[in-house]
Amino acid sequence: MPINPDYLQLAPRVRSFVEQHILPRELELGACNTAAATLAASLQDQAKAAGVFGNFYPYADGRRPLTLRQYLPIAAEEGRSEFAPAILGGDASLDAYMLSRHANAELRERYLLPLLRGERVPCYAMSEPDSIGSIPATMTSHAQWQGDHWTLNARKWFICRAGRADFATVIARTADGPLQQSLSMLLVATDSPGFEWVRPLALLGRQQGQGELLFKDVRVEPEHVLGEAGQGIALMQQRLGLGRLLRAAHWLGLAQRCFDDLCKRVHSPRGELARLADKQLVRARVYRVFRDIAAARGLLEDAADKFDRGQANAIEVNLAKLAASETLSAAVDSAVQIMGAEGLSDLSPLSGIYRCARTTHILDGTDDALISNLGRDLLSATAPGRTFDYRSPSLSLDKVAP
Amino acid sequence: MPINPDYLQLAPRVRSFVEQHILPRELELGACNTAAATLAASLQDQAKAAGVFGNFYPYADGRRPLTLRQYLPIAAEEGRSEFAPAILGGDASLDAYMLSRHANAELRERYLLPLLRGERVPCYAMSEPDSIGSIPATMTSHAQWQGDHWTLNARKWFICRAGRADFATVIARTADGPLQQSLSMLLVATDSPGFEWVRPLALLGRQQGQGELLFKDVRVEPEHVLGEAGQGIALMQQRLGLGRLLRAAHWLGLAQRCFDDLCKRVHSPRGELARLADKQLVRARVYRVFRDIAAARGLLEDAADKFDRGQANAIEVNLAKLAASETLSAAVDSAVQIMGAEGLSDLSPLSGIYRCARTTHILDGTDDALISNLGRDLLSATAPGRTFDYRSPSLSLDKVAP
Amino acid sequence: MPINPDYLQLAPRVRSFVEQHILPRELELGACNTAAATLAASLQDQAKAAGVFGNFYPYADGRRPLTLRQYLPIAAEEGRSEFAPAILGGDASLDAYMLSRHANAELRERYLLPLLRGERVPCYAMSEPDSIGSIPATMTSHAQWQGDHWTLNARKWFICRAGRADFATVIARTADGPLQQSLSMLLVATDSPGFEWVRPLALLGRQQGQGELLFKDVRVEPEHVLGEAGQGIALMQQRLGLGRLLRAAHWLGLAQRCFDDLCKRVHSPRGELARLADKQLVRARVYRVFRDIAAARGLLEDAADKFDRGQANAIEVNLAKLAASETLSAAVDSAVQIMGAEGLSDLSPLSGIYRCARTTHILDGTDDALISNLGRDLLSATAPGRTFDYRSPSLSLDKVAP
Amino acid sequence: MPINPDYLQLAPRVRSFVEQHILPRELELGACNTAAATLAASLQDQAKAAGVFGNFYPYADGRRPLTLRQYLPIAAEEGRSEFAPAILGGDASLDAYMLSRHANAELRERYLLPLLRGERVPCYAMSEPDSIGSIPATMTSHAQWQGDHWTLNARKWFICRAGRADFATVIARTADGPLQQSLSMLLVATDSPGFEWVRPLALLGRQQGQGELLFKDVRVEPEHVLGEAGQGIALMQQRLGLGRLLRAAHWLGLAQRCFDDLCKRVHSPRGELARLADKQLVRARVYRVFRDIAAARGLLEDAADKFDRGQANAIEVNLAKLAASETLSAAVDSAVQIMGAEGLSDLSPLSGIYRCARTTHILDGTDDALISNLGRDLLSATAPGRTFDYRSPSLSLDKVAP
Repeated sequence: MPINPDYLQLAPRVRSFVEQHILPRELELGACNTAAATLAASLQDQAKAAGVFGNFYPYADGRRPLTLRQYLPIAAEEGRSEFAPAILGGDASLDAYMLSRHANAELRERYLLPLLRGERVPCYAMSEPDSIGSIPATMTSHAQWQGDHWTLNARKWFICRAGRADFATVIARTADGPLQQSLSMLLVATDSPGFEWVRPLALLGRQQGQGELLFKDVRVEPEHVLGEAGQGIALMQQRLGLGRLLRAAHWLGLAQRCFDDLCKRVHSPRGELARLADKQLVRARVYRVFRDIAAARGLLEDAADKFDRGQANAIEVNLAKLAASETLSAAVDSAVQIMGAEGLSDLSPLSGIYRCARTTHILDGTDDALISNLGRDLLSATAPGRTFDYRSPSLSLDKVAP
Repeated sequence: MPINPDYLQLAPRVRSFVEQHILPRELELGACNTAAATLAASLQDQAKAAGVFGNFYPYADGRRPLTLRQYLPIAAEEGRSEFAPAILGGDASLDAYMLSRHANAELRERYLLPLLRGERVPCYAMSEPDSIGSIPATMTSHAQWQGDHWTLNARKWFICRAGRADFATVIARTADGPLQQSLSMLLVATDSPGFEWVRPLALLGRQQGQGELLFKDVRVEPEHVLGEAGQGIALMQQRLGLGRLLRAAHWLGLAQRCFDDLCKRVHSPRGELARLADKQLVRARVYRVFRDIAAARGLLEDAADKFDRGQANAIEVNLAKLAASETLSAAVDSAVQIMGAEGLSDLSPLSGIYRCARTTHILDGTDDALISNLGRDLLSATAPGRTFDYRSPSLSLDKVAP
Repeated sequence: MPINPDYLQLAPRVRSFVEQHILPRELELGACNTAAATLAASLQDQAKAAGVFGNFYPYADGRRPLTLRQYLPIAAEEGRSEFAPAILGGDASLDAYMLSRHANAELRERYLLPLLRGERVPCYAMSEPDSIGSIPATMTSHAQWQGDHWTLNARKWFICRAGRADFATVIARTADGPLQQSLSMLLVATDSPGFEWVRPLALLGRQQGQGELLFKDVRVEPEHVLGEAGQGIALMQQRLGLGRLLRAAHWLGLAQRCFDDLCKRVHSPRGELARLADKQLVRARVYRVFRDIAAARGLLEDAADKFDRGQANAIEVNLAKLAASETLSAAVDSAVQIMGAEGLSDLSPLSGIYRCARTTHILDGTDDALISNLGRDLLSATAPGRTFDYRSPSLSLDKVAP
Repeated sequence: MPINPDYLQLAPRVRSFVEQHILPRELELGACNTAAATLAASLQDQAKAAGVFGNFYPYADGRRPLTLRQYLPIAAEEGRSEFAPAILGGDASLDAYMLSRHANAELRERYLLPLLRGERVPCYAMSEPDSIGSIPATMTSHAQWQGDHWTLNARKWFICRAGRADFATVIARTADGPLQQSLSMLLVATDSPGFEWVRPLALLGRQQGQGELLFKDVRVEPEHVLGEAGQGIALMQQRLGLGRLLRAAHWLGLAQRCFDDLCKRVHSPRGELARLADKQLVRARVYRVFRDIAAARGLLEDAADKFDRGQANAIEVNLAKLAASETLSAAVDSAVQIMGAEGLSDLSPLSGIYRCARTTHILDGTDDALISNLGRDLLSATAPGRTFDYRSPSLSLDKVAP
C-alpha cells in the first residue's frame, strides 16, 4: 500500500540533511544547555523548510502518508544521529499516531494539530518510583471521578522529554477492579495547576530532559481522556507495539552510523598505520556488526509488514526491539574499541551513543521481561492443536484493527 | 520472476511427504546399511510419483522452474529431515545447475539428463589430504594433456556421496601458471579405469557415503571438461555461491524441525510434569532458537534475491551460510538439552542432527575463513570513494552474469 | 593434610602410562567390541603392575591415601584419554568411596575389597524413563519390605557401564512419606534373579556399555542397603558432590589434551603451510581454551579444598562442574575447527571427545538445573542477616561430616 | 613469604573504612569539582589516621610489607569504591614500587619519600595523540641530550590524574636505533617550565582529572632518568605487569560490590514485590556474576604468586587483566539491568561504575591486543621441543629478577 510514491526520494534527503546539518553539530547538541535547545529549535525550522520534518506524522484525518515499512529506511537515516529524531519530529510521531487514532475533536484541535506543526513537545508518563514496570498492577497513580472531572494524583519518573514537554499522556487507575478495565490514558498540559517538575534524572551522566514529575490534585476534564476511560491497558499495548518499532528503527540507524565510523577509522591514516584492515580480530568485529544490522533489519521489516497489514505482531515487535538493542550495543562497543580512549571522550560522538545504547535494554521493557514473554508467547503459539507458521507466528493470535 | 505459479502449493506438499513418509523412517535411513539404501531408493520413487522430486532442478534447457527465492520455503521443508534432500533430489540440484549452465551437448546427454531423472548420483571432489582447503594453490591434483585427452592423477578426501556416486566433478590443475587460469573441472564416471574408492571416512561416527577417492592415471576426454579448461576457479566460486545457499536453506529447515521438537517436548506430558513452560531458562531457549531462525531466514532471502537478479552476492551468501550453521547448531543443542540423555540416544533423531550440525562449520569453508573474508570484503566495500548501501553491500562489487 | 608424600611423583607416572600405553590405542579402545574390552583388561593389568591403578581408591579401612586436592593433578592426567579413567580405576573410585564410608562388613567383604583389587565393575542406577531427573519425587522404582528382605521393582536407563557391571547401586523408594526419609540405596549383583539387561543405549552413536536395566521382583537382603534404609537422598547428595568433582577433574584433563592437540596442529607442517600461528582468530581460540582451563582449574581446586576440609561445598562443586563441562566443550570444538573435517573423522580422537563433551551438559544434572540451583543458593547465602564471604560462600551453609 | 603477619586483619579494617567513610559519600566524590577534591583529601587524612593508607606501599628501602598475594584481598576491599584507591593510596603504589626499585638517591628523596607520605600525586605519561598504543615505534615524544641535560618535547593524552599530578613519569625516545635501547623514563615535576596542561579529556562524560599534556622544551636533569637511559622498554614492561595486576585486583573488588548490590536489590522490598529471587533469568545473572568473580580471582592469584616468586608471568597477568575487565563489565551490566533505569541514574553508584568498567577494555592494552599477544605467547610456549606445564606456562620463559 504505497500511499506516498515519493518516499524513495525521502530517505536520501533525510540523510543529506542529517549529514550536513546535524552530524557536524552533535557536540553542541549534546551539551544539554540552553544553547543546545536553541540550536535544536533552529535546526527543526530548517528541517521543516527542507521538507524533512514529521516524516511519519499522520495527516490530521489519521491517514498515514507512508506505511511503516516505507518509513523504515527513512527512520534509519533519522536515527544516524542521536539528536535527529527530536529535531526531525521522529520522537513525536508516536504521540501523533495515538492522538490521530484516539483523540476526540477537542484533543485533536488542542494537541494533535499543533503537534503536527511541530509546535508542541509531548511526553509519556508511565513509570513510577514505587511500582514494578512489568507489573502494571503495582502502579499507584490514580484519578478520582468528581462528578464532572477527574482529580489526578501521580508520581512518575524517568520520563523522557519531561523537562521540555508541553503536555503529558499519563497512565493512571480510574476505577477499581480488574486492570483490563481500570487504567486510563489522561492528557495533561504541563501548565496545569498541580503539575510539578520534581527533578531531572540524568542517565549515565547525561541530562537530556528526562526526569521526575508530580501530579498533585490535577484537574482533568473528561474530554482529556484518550479513547475511553478504562481502555488504558489496550492503548498502552498499542502504543508500546508501535513505539518499540519506531525506537528500534532509529537504533538501527545509529548502529549503521557506528559501523560507518568503525570502517572509516580502519581506513584512516591511523588505521593504516596500525594495519587494522589486515587484523582478523578487526575483521571479525566488522563482520559481526554488519551481520547484526542485516539480521535485525530483517526482523524489523517483518514486524512492520504485519503492522501495516493490521496483524498482531507482538512476537515480531519484541524480537525486533531486542535485536535492535543488542545490535546497537555491540556496534558502538566495537566502534569504541577500535577508536580506543578517543572513542570514549567528548571528542567522539561514540561517547554519547555508547551511553544511549545502554538505556535501550531497559527502555520500553527490560530484556529479561521481553525474553520471558517471547518464550511464553512462542510456546503458546506452538501449543498442541495450533498451527504454527514460521513466517507469521503471530497470525494465529488475536488480530488488532489496522 | 515467478516462473512457476504453482510453487506456493509445492511447499505444503513437500512438507506432507516428508512428514508422512520420511520422518517416521529416519532411524532406518540413518542406519548406513544396504537396507537404508534400498529404502531411500524406494522413497525416491514415491517422491517422483508424488511430484515432489527434483524441486529445484532446472529444465534440460537450463531454465529454472523456480527462482531461488521461491525455492527457499520448499528447501526448508526438504531440510526438515537430514535424509530428505537426498531422497527428493535436493542434494543433486547443485550439480544439475552447474551442468545445465556449463556442460556441452555430450555431457548433457550423458550426465545431465539422467541426473534430472534421478538416475545418477553426483559427487564433488575438491578437498585433498595434503592441501589447505582455503588455499587452492596448495592443491596437488593435476591432469596432464596427452595430445587428445587428459591424464588425471588426484587424491581427494571427505567427498560427500563418494561411496554411491556415479560420476565425480574433480578439481585439478591442468596448466602451470597463475591459479586463475590453471584449474579445471573434470567430469569422471566412477566406473572409469583408475578410479578407486580408497576408504570410507565417518564423521562423528556416522558413515553416510563420504570417503576418500583416488584417481590414478584416469583418462579424461577433452569433452569432459566443464566450461573451458582453466576456468576452474571461476566455476568453483559459482558452485560454492549457490551451494552454500542451498545448504543453508536445508539447514534452516532442520533448525525449524529442532524448534518444533523442542516445543513439542515442552508441551508433552513429561514437559508438563517438569513444568518446563514456566521456566524462564526454557523460555529463553525457545526465544533464542526462534530468533536465530527468523534472523537467518532474512539473511538467506537477501542472498537469494540477489542470486535471482544475477547480482554479486558473496557477502550475503557467506552471512547466510554462517547464520544458518550457527542457528542449526544452537537449535539442536537446545533441543537436546531439553530432551536430556534421550535426545542424544538412538531413540531420537536429534542424535544425528547434532552431529550433522557440527559438520556445517567446516563444510564449504570454515567459520574462521568465512569471517575473515567477510570482514575483508566489507572493508573493501566501505573503502574511501566507494558508496556503501546497507541493503546491498555487494552491489558495488563486480557483477556475475546471471 | 598430605597423607601420601609420593603423590607428586604419581602425576608424571600416570601421564607416562597414559601417553605410552593408552593414547596410541584409543582407536581400538573406542571400537566398542570384544577386542576393545580385552585390550582394556590387559591395559588395566599393566597399570596395576606399573602402580598407576586405583589412584584415588581409599584403603579398605576408609582412609584416603590422597586428599582430593592432591588427586586433582593426577585425575587430570587420567582424564587425557576418554578411556583411561576406566582402565586406571578412576571410574570406580566414587563407588569405592561410598562403600568405604557406608557399607557394612558384609558389603565391604563382598563388594569393596574386590572393587579395590579392580576385580569388580560397579554401576549406579538412578535415571528412569518416566521420571524427571531433577525431581526425585517423580521416581517410580520401589522396594517392598517382605518381613526379612526387600523386593525391588525398577526400570532404569542411561546407566553408565551397565553392560559390563558386576553390581549396581539402585535408588528406590522403600517407604511412603516425605522423600527425605523414603529413598534408599540398594546394592544388587547383576547375576541376581530378576535383573535384566534390556538394551544398550548409544549416545551420539557410541555404544560404550550404557543402557537400560530392569529389576523385576529382585530379592534384596537387608544387609544390602547402603547406610540405613531411608537415607537415600542424603547419600545421593554425597555421591553427587564427589562424583561431579571427579568427573570435572577428568574432563579438565581431556580439555588439556584438546589444547595440546590444537597447538600441535598449529605447529605441524600443515599448520605452518596455512600460517595458522599468525592468524588472530587462531590465537584467539588458543587464548580462550587456555583461559577456560586455567579458570576452571581454580574453581575445581576451591571445591576440592572444601571437600578435604569437610566443609559444605555445593556451590563450589556446581560451579566447577559447569565450568569443566563448558571448558571441555569449547576446547574440543576449537580443536576440531582447527583440524577441519579430519578432526571429525575416525582418524582423530577428537571425534569421540566431541561426543563425550556433549554428554557432560546432561550427566549428573543438566546445565539449566545447576544454574538455577546455583542462583538460588547464592541468593540464599546473601540473604539479609547472613554474612557472605567471597572466598567461601558455602561456609555459612550446613557442614557435612568429613 | 609472609612479611607482615598482620595482613589478615588489614582487609576487614579496609572494608570497614570503605563502607563507613567512602561508600556513603560516593555521589559527592564523583562530582568532579573542588568540593570533591577537598573531601577526598580529608578522607585520605582519616585513612592515614586509621592505618589503612598506603597498604601496598614499599618501605623506603624498597622492601615490601606484604606480598602481592597477601595484598590481593586488601585491594579487593579498596576496589569496592571507584574512589577508594585514590584515597587509600592504592593508585600510587605502582609509582612507589617503580621508584623504590629504580630511583636514585635524589629521586627517592624528592619523589619517593613524599609519595609514601601521601603528599605527592604521580601520573604516567605514555599515550600520544598520533601514535598507536600497541606499537611503541610510532611514538614521537623525544628528549635531546644537551651535554648536561635532556630537552624533552612530548604531547601525551588520556593521562590519568594528569590534572592534579605533582610529577609525571614520561616515556620518550632518548636515542636513535632499535627501540629496546632507545626509550627512557623521565621524571618531570609538573611545575617545570614548559610543562603545560592542555585540556581535560572526559571519559563517557566523566571528568576525573585525566587529560592532555604538553612538554615543550622541558629541561630534564640526567638524575631524573629512572633506571638508566635506554631502559625504557624494560621498565615499561615491568610497570605494565604489576600495573595490570593492581588494576585487576581493584576491578575485582568493584565487581564484588556490584554482586552485592545486585543481591541486595533482589532481597529488597521492590525485589520481593517483583519476585526476583524466583526468576530463573535473575538467578542465572547471579550465577554468572559470581562465577566470573570466582574464576577471575583464581587467575589473579596465580599471576600474583608468580610475581612474588619473581617468575615471568606475562601470560598470567594478561589472563587476569582480561578476566577482571570482563568480570567487572558483566557484573555491573547485570546489576544495572536488575535495578532498571534507577541503576543508570545519579541515584546509584552503578552509573559511574558502568562507565568505569568500559574504560578497562582499553586501559593498559586493548582486549584485542592482549588476546592476540596471549595466543602468540601460548603458541610460543607450546612450540615443539618446549615443555609446557599447565600450572605455570610462563615458567619456561625467561625469568625476571624479583
